[in-house]
This record gives sequence, structure tokens and C-alpha cells, in this order.
Amino acid sequence: MGAQFSAQRYDRLVKLVVTGTIGIDTVYTPRDKREGVVGGSAAYFAAAASQLAPVRLVAAVGGDWPSEHRKTLSGFPGVCIEGLDARAQSRTFAWGGRYFEDVNRRETLFTEVGVLQEAPPPVPLGYRDSELVFLGNTHPAVQLGFLEQFPARKLVVADTMDLWIRTAHGELGALLARVDGLIINDSEAGELTGFRNAISAGKKIMAMGPKFVVVKKGEHGAVLFHQSGMALVPAFPVEEHNVVDPTGAGDSFAGGFMGYLAREARFDPAALQSAMAYGTVMASFALESFGLDRMRLLNATDFQQRLATFQQLARVG
Amino acid sequence: MGAQFSAQRYDRLVKLVVTGTIGIDTVYTPRDKREGVVGGSAAYFAAAASQLAPVRLVAAVGGDWPSEHRKTLSGFPGVCIEGLDARAQSRTFAWGGRYFEDVNRRETLFTEVGVLQEAPPPVPLGYRDSELVFLGNTHPAVQLGFLEQFPARKLVVADTMDLWIRTAHGELGALLARVDGLIINDSEAGELTGFRNAISAGKKIMAMGPKFVVVKKGEHGAVLFHQSGMALVPAFPVEEHNVVDPTGAGDSFAGGFMGYLAREARFDPAALQSAMAYGTVMASFALESFGLDRMRLLNATDFQQRLATFQQLARVG
Repeated sequence: MGAQFSAQRYDRLVKLVVTGTIGIDTVYTPRDKREGVVGGSAAYFAAAASQLAPVRLVAAVGGDWPSEHRKTLSGFPGVCIEGLDARAQSRTFAWGGRYFEDVNRRETLFTEVGVLQEAPPPVPLGYRDSELVFLGNTHPAVQLGFLEQFPARKLVVADTMDLWIRTAHGELGALLARVDGLIINDSEAGELTGFRNAISAGKKIMAMGPKFVVVKKGEHGAVLFHQSGMALVPAFPVEEHNVVDPTGAGDSFAGGFMGYLAREARFDPAALQSAMAYGTVMASFALESFGLDRMRLLNATDFQQRLATFQQLARVG
Repeated sequence: MGAQFSAQRYDRLVKLVVTGTIGIDTVYTPRDKREGVVGGSAAYFAAAASQLAPVRLVAAVGGDWPSEHRKTLSGFPGVCIEGLDARAQSRTFAWGGRYFEDVNRRETLFTEVGVLQEAPPPVPLGYRDSELVFLGNTHPAVQLGFLEQFPARKLVVADTMDLWIRTAHGELGALLARVDGLIINDSEAGELTGFRNAISAGKKIMAMGPKFVVVKKGEHGAVLFHQSGMALVPAFPVEEHNVVDPTGAGDSFAGGFMGYLAREARFDPAALQSAMAYGTVMASFALESFGLDRMRLLNATDFQQRLATFQQLARVG
């Protein structure tokens, strides 16, 4: 991987696609609440990835999906919404959640699966040449179905969640045997492996098939496991009162991580390690607003400045 | 600070002293147990610091202190035990604790304060020229008393614990107004400030007086706050089954941190940031054995190799 790409940056962009959910979120935080927020793993991922490379989006929404939300997503210059499947007779996935003072803890107030219980959205023909594929969190059988529809895939990375670890363990195992990478949070890694410790959990997941695993630890950073070792990043430091809404921070991490790989057209361990910093910085912006408000205002200068700050803060030795 | 020292390394070593406790520990872990282990904050600190610079020790023990323990401590070439006050009629501080499967959690089984309830040990006259002073965890009034006995002090750093936060809040505040730095773990920082988040907690402690604060987060690394910013380090990655005994890891971090500052004779923010890595690597060795067994075997090559590995693992960008 990696070294075969040596042309100009824009010649060597890798075609990136994300499959996943788009939702309408209702979010309660200790200090605020917001209804009708743009949500879903694919929305957060796409908004973040598009800061670094063009990204194609595959997801389904219902007839109730607000036109404002469409405007928000298509307002990201790098996001292609051709793969957005709008079904007039269906309802959009809706999620309501409440965060505690400890922002690492949240409870789900309601989940209306809506369109998610129907057939998955079709992959546009024009997306079949996608090389870098991110399978956002949905049922692992659905993720496997998407994977098959990208014959030009060079690197496939998946996310999952506790629900599938508990209810679709077999399908999840089959998925892990087929993907190149898994990005997962620490509590889910613990459920999947029985190890609370992220180092032990990550190593055990590596033995399940992926060539690399990222275990996200929220405010404690993230750990990358790859075939020749590991890499560690702290989180970007954020004070409690500056966390407006943690929803989507993990998906934004994944978007920054994958957007970097697409931009660099390299998937070697050194590129994966660098991608960890891009994911971390992207996540730090995501939690500064409800929905995609902060991501809409993000520009390359803001991003580069915070990345440079992060590199300075996390310099070791 | 810093740049004025430009002579040979051994000319510019700063005289380092640690005051604190020496104990006889009984430790239960999920897989093992050990009685009569060398313990106490000063013992762990001194063993760690001495890997990088000579260190003077001020602590009291009782008549029951095993000669084996004296041999262990004096066996570290860099540790000066002239300040070890052995009181034949007293009993050594004894501590018993049990660790859970989650090694971040422990319960105290017993504490026999013994000699700690008597007058603090005297500081030898020959130690009065100490420049770098680490006030290991004891009652903050005792720490203040020690501080006064080092008229040549250039940098004073303290540790504390939950007991003093609860029972000696006033004296602790007086101490914080007098020290240059505080090294504290995250749960204690939370108790002291009311902030669970280490970033918020660290900033609030800075407002209490110190010029720098290190908040240790165990397996999640550590955060440094200084007058011109912050620095972040992850922990050195250790799998659960490789943690033999976490006792003293925090004191070993402090020893590595202060030993580096003594060796470099610099206390500027860049030196403090580099010292974080030395503390982290030192702590990772400490938990590989009960007591000081691993530290006794540590050599400069082992240390430098792990430090280089850590720098590679934690490289950002």
C-alpha cells in the first residue's frame, strides 16, 4: 500500500464513500436542548471527511426529512449526495438522547428506526469505483451487503455498536473477517472482547481479522493497532463547559481519519498514525456545536491552526 | 531558566531531595499477593529518580523495618539514605491494599500509621543545599515544614492525597500557595476542584497558586498545565495481564519527572513537557513487579529503548 502513489496531490486523491445513517436528533445536554438536529453517523462522517477530501454519501431518509437538512449537507462542497435515497412514504430515523454532567455518559430517550427497517439504499452506479469505503454503523449484514457493491475497494473500514455486538455477533464476526479496519469506542471494544483495558481489547480485535483497529477513548484519546505495532494519541484538550454537544464526535473522528487517508492516498502504518491526529482534531470541532453548525463554519486555516497546536501539545520527548 | 546551564552534564546536575513516607506494604492483586514489600511514596520516588540523577531521601522508619529493605534502597547507586531516620522504639508505616480486575480501582485493607504520627524526620545539614525539592504525600503542614528547611530551593513540587483534601483543606491551600508545582492524580484533582474533567480541574488548580500542575490519569496518560500552556502524554501501553502491581506507579512517575529536571537542570515549560515522557516511561517499569524489584534491574539501555519506543508510538502528525 501507499508508496505506489507518487503523483500530484490532486491526482492521487482516492475516491471515498460512506454508508450509514442519517437521522433527526433530539439532544438534551446539562445546559441546553435542541430538537430537529441533523444527525446520523453518515452525516457527521461526511461533513468531517469533506474538510479533507471529496466524499460520497449513501443513506436513506424519509419524506419527513427537513429540506433544511438537505441544504445543510449539500452545503458542504466536498459532499456528494447523489446516494441519498429519499423515500416519500417512509419516516427518517429519529434519535433522542440526554447527556449527563459527565459528558462521557448518555442515555437514549427514544429511537424511531423508520426507514432503517426497510431495504438498504441502493449504491449509485457512479459510486462503484469507490476505493476507500467507510461502513458507518448499521447492522453488520447490511454493512457486508454494501461492501460487496464496491468492487474497486482498496481499503474498507467499519464502525459498529453495542447493539450488534449483543444481537448480531455472528454477522459481526463475518464482517470483521472482511474489512481492513475497525474504528470502535472503548466501551464497545470492551463488550466485544471482555477486556476493559483498551490495549488488551484492541489486540484481541486484531486477532478477529482486521489489519488495523482504532479504539476511541473519548476525552482520553485513541489507540491505533496495526500490523507492525501501535500508535497513541491523547484527545485535544477541551474543558467541560466548552462541550456543547458530544453527539457525532466519534463519527467526526472517523471522517477526519478517513478523509486524511483519501487525501494522502496512503494506507501504510505511518499514514494511519498521522490520520489519528486528523481524526482527533476534527472531533474536537464537532463537539463545539449541536449538529453540523461548527463543521459548516470550519475552514482550512482553523483546522491547520488547531492541528499545529495539537502537535505541539502532544509532542513527546 | 535553562539556558544559563551549558557546562558538562555532570556539572549541571541539580541537587534533588525527596521527603515522604517509607512503608511496609501488603498487596493483593487479582492474580497474586505479596507481604512485606518495600513501599511508601519516598521509596518509589527515590528508586525512580535515581535512574536519572542522584537523589537524597528524608523519611522515618521504625525498629521493625527489615534490613532487607534498607539493603534494597541503599542498593540504588543514586539514592542517598543519610536522611533515613530509623527509630528503634517506633513502628514503620504499614499499608495493605487490594486491587480489582480494573487495576485503576483499589481498596485499602489497613493502614498502620506508626512513625508517621510522630515528629517528622530531621533534614540532615548536608541536605540544606538541595535545589529541587519533592514533597511526597504527607500532611500538608508537614510538607510546609519540610519546605522551610531547604533555603537553597529553586523548584518545589508536591504530591497530596484525598485524605488531606478532605481533612486539611486549609493547610493544603497554604501549601499550594508556596509550591512551584503539584503532581496529583485525576480523582484527587476532581475532589480538590469539583471538576471530573482533568482539563477543567487542572486549570482550576493553577489558579490556587502553583506555576505548574500535572494531572495523572493512570492508563490514560497525564496532562501538564504550565504558565504558557499545556502538554499531553498518553500512558505507555500495557496490557492488563502485564500489570503485576500498580502500587507506586504514580510515585515512580513523579520520580522520573523530577529526576529528568534534576539531570537537565532546566525547569522551563519545554523541560517540563519532556519530563512528562520520562515520568510515563518510569511508571511503566514500576508496575511490572511488586515493590522495587523491576526498578532494581532497570538499566539505562532498557530505559532509553522504551523511551524511544514511546516517542515513536506517541508521535503526532
